[in-house]
Amino acid sequence: MEPLCAEVRVDAAGNLRGFYSAAEPRAPCLLIGSHLDTVPNAGAYDGVLGVVLALALLEELQGRRLPFGIEVVGFSEEEGVRFGTPFIGSRALVGRLDEELLNAHDAQGISVRKAIEDFGLNPKEISQAELKNDTLGYIELHIEQGPVLETLNQPLAAVEAIAGQSRLEFTFRGRANHAGTTPMDLRCDAIAGAAEWISTVERAAQAVPGLVATVGKIEAKPGAVNVIAAEARLSLDVRHSADDIRTRTVGECIREAQQIAARRGLSVRDTTLLNQRAVAMDPFLVDEIERAIVKTRCKPCRMVSGAGHDAMILAEKVPAAMIFLRTPGGISHDPAESVAVEDVEKAIECGLHLLDQLAASPEFQKRMNRA
Amino acid sequence: MEPLCAEVRVDAAGNLRGFYSAAEPRAPCLLIGSHLDTVPNAGAYDGVLGVVLALALLEELQGRRLPFGIEVVGFSEEEGVRFGTPFIGSRALVGRLDEELLNAHDAQGISVRKAIEDFGLNPKEISQAELKNDTLGYIELHIEQGPVLETLNQPLAAVEAIAGQSRLEFTFRGRANHAGTTPMDLRCDAIAGAAEWISTVERAAQAVPGLVATVGKIEAKPGAVNVIAAEARLSLDVRHSADDIRTRTVGECIREAQQIAARRGLSVRDTTLLNQRAVAMDPFLVDEIERAIVKTRCKPCRMVSGAGHDAMILAEKVPAAMIFLRTPGGISHDPAESVAVEDVEKAIECGLHLLDQLAASPEFQKRMNRA
Repeated sequence: MEPLCAEVRVDAAGNLRGFYSAAEPRAPCLLIGSHLDTVPNAGAYDGVLGVVLALALLEELQGRRLPFGIEVVGFSEEEGVRFGTPFIGSRALVGRLDEELLNAHDAQGISVRKAIEDFGLNPKEISQAELKNDTLGYIELHIEQGPVLETLNQPLAAVEAIAGQSRLEFTFRGRANHAGTTPMDLRCDAIAGAAEWISTVERAAQAVPGLVATVGKIEAKPGAVNVIAAEARLSLDVRHSADDIRTRTVGECIREAQQIAARRGLSVRDTTLLNQRAVAMDPFLVDEIERAIVKTRCKPCRMVSGAGHDAMILAEKVPAAMIFLRTPGGISHDPAESVAVEDVEKAIECGLHLLDQLAASPEFQKRMNRA
Repeated sequence: MEPLCAEVRVDAAGNLRGFYSAAEPRAPCLLIGSHLDTVPNAGAYDGVLGVVLALALLEELQGRRLPFGIEVVGFSEEEGVRFGTPFIGSRALVGRLDEELLNAHDAQGISVRKAIEDFGLNPKEISQAELKNDTLGYIELHIEQGPVLETLNQPLAAVEAIAGQSRLEFTFRGRANHAGTTPMDLRCDAIAGAAEWISTVERAAQAVPGLVATVGKIEAKPGAVNVIAAEARLSLDVRHSADDIRTRTVGECIREAQQIAARRGLSVRDTTLLNQRAVAMDPFLVDEIERAIVKTRCKPCRMVSGAGHDAMILAEKVPAAMIFLRTPGGISHDPAESVAVEDVEKAIECGLHLLDQLAASPEFQKRMNRA
């Protein structure tokens, strides 16, 4: 970063930040970045590609100065692998790396605070990581991590929203009985009830465009070949860009579970583990990204992100938007994760068009004046 | 046993055997018994009640001698808990406690042979445990271990057959993908496919009287709330008294699995773990038991046993039949296993009627003459 940026620092939350100055010294600043961490046994592109692409954009500018400064950010700890809480780095920028999060512990009992200190940083300086008032917005380039762009045969898309997400756990309880001596009509089979419910969940999601619902986890007890299951415990993950559609679907899934349980002489209990609202990206930035995609000789394309990203956190404070790159096979968080060289080239070209569009945009000029 | 039986011994397979002599010294012999072992954390009646009831019948005879002798047998190791193979004791009586079974090992690496020696018995004498040629048949009293008699409001039933049994393992394989970024129509979800199949298995069994089919075990990988399952592994247990119905059902379940997998872009593999033919009980003995039940002022009642019993093994060599006692709640292999005192009284009365009927039966006389 140092040959490209006037100033490179690591903030107190461990975010790597480099500042590329504007034509005017006091001009406001646009953030471009992504996260530096990923999951264990991951691929080489999740997160870090977005940071490298931000630097590639600066390189392509070849010293040319824009009406706004650019701050490249490589966020720390986006995945939440170590402390079970994601977005630790980006939360610092919006003032939410708070006492509660600093006191969270990893599996070895080490707190976020202690981890920051052990890394040679000072948790007391975290407030200095916060966004300045003159921040114009946040742009994130990221691999899609899904199969949509590959299926559409498109290299790039503007992300218009990050889907809201509900996570629940369902437990069906019946009666363990001998698989040989219990006639079909005298059974209270927790697995059979759970199976019927899984199919209703799938049908509910298939019926609504953009809705996804997943049962990814199922465990049955006692779990023996010759014993009717007394208990089946399942997870449910529901996502959509419209919060009302998501919460209505979750309600339907709960009602279906209750009806299936009642009809089969089972009981069912549901526990909500997560309810996260959808986050809209900034409409102006989304439009500009789509225009830049078209200038890159690609078809206009916008989509919803089913996964969470730092852009979701930044959007709490500043206009934010994302550019997705096609992910071959939709494979991510896996050593087989990849990206086509041509798609990376298109992403750089698209990013440059975007910067030039913003530099020339009356709307962005207004935003700069307000900043 | 000693006050009641002329001769009490433990044979080389660990079966406890007591002989109650006939009116004539060389008369043939009827076996009555059940098993002495049960499962860990079991109840007080599985198996051993049948041995105690056999002794109760001798006690009720008050020294009265019948035209045939009675040998009471308390079988060893019916459940197969220690060596993974059931019916070790009864197999000795039909000449099937063979070298292969003697060499089977428990979890500590101790063989059946060594266990027999450690118990103070001589494995070389196992052939002496075999049934003599003059054995007239085998009668077993046993708790039903299911809810059928309770549902029918009947204390006793004649068992006319022991259901055949198939056990299989099915593995559906799809593609692990992100639950948020993978649209419904681009998924290969192993859990969703497995769920659809479980429902078809249940419907297939419900459609045929007397058929039971159970998926008691399900495990999914990777098993995370936000990951579409790549693999689901399930067990299938199918039982019926007619072998052709059972094998046809298993075939249907395999075809359904293949069709569901093909339609969903999954693969499926099935492995057969067990194929055990149904065993008919001796029709004459079943009729006589049902007559004895009626004489005990109960309604005539016959049923199929969904579970295996020593009678299934004895039936390989001699006419065999069983009397089931109502099991409250169908609960067995559990400390809550119970039996009503009145039902035990009825079982004794029924058993005495049966012995008297056999003593007076021309058909049984023919069998005695042939023995």
